[in-house]
Amino acid sequence: MSVIKVAILGFGTVGEGFYRTIQSHAEELTAVLGKKVEVAAILIKNKQKERDINKDVLVTTEFTDILNLPQLDVVVEAIVDKDPTYIFLKKAIERGCHIITANKEMFAHYGQELLELAKEHHVSVGYEATVAGGIPVIQTLRQLLNVNRVQQVQGILNGTSNFILTEMREKKLSFAQALRAAQENGFAEADPTNDVEGFDAFYKAMILSRLAFGEEPNWHAVERLGITSITRELIDTAERLGLRFKHIASISKSSHQLKVSVKPVLVGNEHPLYHVEGVQNAVNISSDIVGQITLQGPGAGMYPTASAVIEDLVYVCQNRPESQGLLSTSETNTAISDLEQKEENWLLAGLFNNAIDPSIKLIEHVEDGTWIAKGKKGEIEALSTQNNELIFFPIIGEYEKEQISARVAL
Amino acid sequence: MSVIKVAILGFGTVGEGFYRTIQSHAEELTAVLGKKVEVAAILIKNKQKERDINKDVLVTTEFTDILNLPQLDVVVEAIVDKDPTYIFLKKAIERGCHIITANKEMFAHYGQELLELAKEHHVSVGYEATVAGGIPVIQTLRQLLNVNRVQQVQGILNGTSNFILTEMREKKLSFAQALRAAQENGFAEADPTNDVEGFDAFYKAMILSRLAFGEEPNWHAVERLGITSITRELIDTAERLGLRFKHIASISKSSHQLKVSVKPVLVGNEHPLYHVEGVQNAVNISSDIVGQITLQGPGAGMYPTASAVIEDLVYVCQNRPESQGLLSTSETNTAISDLEQKEENWLLAGLFNNAIDPSIKLIEHVEDGTWIAKGKKGEIEALSTQNNELIFFPIIGEYEKEQISARVAL
Repeated sequence: MSVIKVAILGFGTVGEGFYRTIQSHAEELTAVLGKKVEVAAILIKNKQKERDINKDVLVTTEFTDILNLPQLDVVVEAIVDKDPTYIFLKKAIERGCHIITANKEMFAHYGQELLELAKEHHVSVGYEATVAGGIPVIQTLRQLLNVNRVQQVQGILNGTSNFILTEMREKKLSFAQALRAAQENGFAEADPTNDVEGFDAFYKAMILSRLAFGEEPNWHAVERLGITSITRELIDTAERLGLRFKHIASISKSSHQLKVSVKPVLVGNEHPLYHVEGVQNAVNISSDIVGQITLQGPGAGMYPTASAVIEDLVYVCQNRPESQGLLSTSETNTAISDLEQKEENWLLAGLFNNAIDPSIKLIEHVEDGTWIAKGKKGEIEALSTQNNELIFFPIIGEYEKEQISARVAL
Repeated sequence: MSVIKVAILGFGTVGEGFYRTIQSHAEELTAVLGKKVEVAAILIKNKQKERDINKDVLVTTEFTDILNLPQLDVVVEAIVDKDPTYIFLKKAIERGCHIITANKEMFAHYGQELLELAKEHHVSVGYEATVAGGIPVIQTLRQLLNVNRVQQVQGILNGTSNFILTEMREKKLSFAQALRAAQENGFAEADPTNDVEGFDAFYKAMILSRLAFGEEPNWHAVERLGITSITRELIDTAERLGLRFKHIASISKSSHQLKVSVKPVLVGNEHPLYHVEGVQNAVNISSDIVGQITLQGPGAGMYPTASAVIEDLVYVCQNRPESQGLLSTSETNTAISDLEQKEENWLLAGLFNNAIDPSIKLIEHVEDGTWIAKGKKGEIEALSTQNNELIFFPIIGEYEKEQISARVAL
């Protein structure tokens, strides 16, 4: 029986989870692929550290050692940094290897280049593990895109932020307390910036944008806000209104206009993302034929992510050279119109002076300085430039209008 | 450019939805398949009925006309009855056609035979549309099964029943009123037996069982209960306890024992199926590496189902001859042990005589004659044979025990 030789770059949570799963599920893999999978080499940083790795495996700190292996079919990359990782993967593709990555930051930056290079070299790129861990989001989107025209993808893509928001609401904690709980549970790094400021979700949104719409917005024009401005008081107010704060990445396209945002949003209880709690991730896909589908599951963790990598391994080994993720890219970097033409519902807090633009309708007085309002995004933003204390959050969810009118009517 | 010739058997909701979608999304399909898809023939029942079908298409009441077409690559079956449909598909496979079916009753009965015959003839079988309409359940399970060992599949697989239960709870309707609402909305047939007695969900469960575990239970040994015994009062009681009635198909396997049931279950609000409302379907898959994933979306309807059929069209045209859905079948028809060894929580109603088996613990008195109890399934069943008025429902959901103990403690 012939053998598939794999190299793993990085032996952290994801790299090790993949290595262990290949061993524990060797029989299943062989049955699916018709070939035995063998880890030939692992790239590590620190030679001193003790690791439980089989003696037959080449463990090295030099990527060149891996590139010079006599047989190498697939390179699995599970490093955190984006450089020089990109160069490693470029060289692997040029050598004719399929590549699989779990590195969202790298793939958000260099995904397009890698996909194009892979197409040229007739190899495949797996990146299921870059978005939403064990949930097969990339696979499902690829599948839907065979025929459906996707209109919108909305997701809770960062488990750390979602855990913090859930803890704050359920246990009445402050942001700082909930962050500490996340750190103690191993759900947040010592420096949590990447998660709580929305960078991690932003990278994932860029990857989804390219897959769903064949293009990305100009990165600098994307509204990216983290959850650090969400206080206990805001969460309490939202709860009284039957709403929940969720950190939502939203990617949509209508009449050639791509819109991407990553920010805290108030979600009504009829919306499928309302119920996604703790470290769970979820993605809601709207497309023209099938309508709305929601996928929910573990967004991180050693084994869920390893499962995504192994699904990719099957995908790339079944040898479908890259073609998808490469839709027409003629309209890349579409400018984002700042002024939305659609009226939305908003929660406004810190609004004590009611002399506001009459096109913004205050539809419910929640409590001192806090209102539910209806208006266009540009109008609300203009209001906030006149009033430094004002903070505002959009409200999503199909039935929120009815709920609100019901309350106002009371 | 070469052409893929397709015949459609049946021109009801699913057949017509598929036909229209092929026309509206022709460009996408050609891009994915590298070939043009042409509907060559449609099998109908009634020649008199007027239909909006292109003149180039052979419209016939005779399957033989279709089988005798000079070129025929794929047969899409969207008939309701199981006979003689099975024979049509058998002949199509023998002619070397890929087949796609949306017919759960037929596929539950004859799926295994068709899959084996297809393997022999090196063609593929698509059956995504048989379970949960537009939600890619089959595809996701296939993908997960590449490596994961699936432990349990739980699903809300019948939109009609779920709509009725939702209406009863939200609008305080009786079963009869909610059924009438379902019929008026086109969600239930004039004869609703198939949906409300759980037959439809049962067929889907059999298909999932074969895919996930490579085997089916003995059909007669499966506990299949519909929702006709659920009253407004029971729903009110459940709501007061923070629980919801859902009609759940559950397929699980542990230590070589396959367990399948299709019945009303009380679900706690932390469970992903608690929030699935109206005609939505959802499936929760537990597997060893990835953990729990939930998929939710439209379980029926012209276009969602058409989308599933078209995904199958891509799947079969990419020419992966059948191999899956054919796991080891050495242990088919595993007997189901009647006496469960695990203690569960139950809602018991109609229990006025408290002289019960002491191994059943009554842990909360909900209201007159209604209790929350903890006990083994066999014990509860034995209790009900002594007491004709007793009805009982299992409670699922991770946190229900804590909720219950919290209430008891109050």
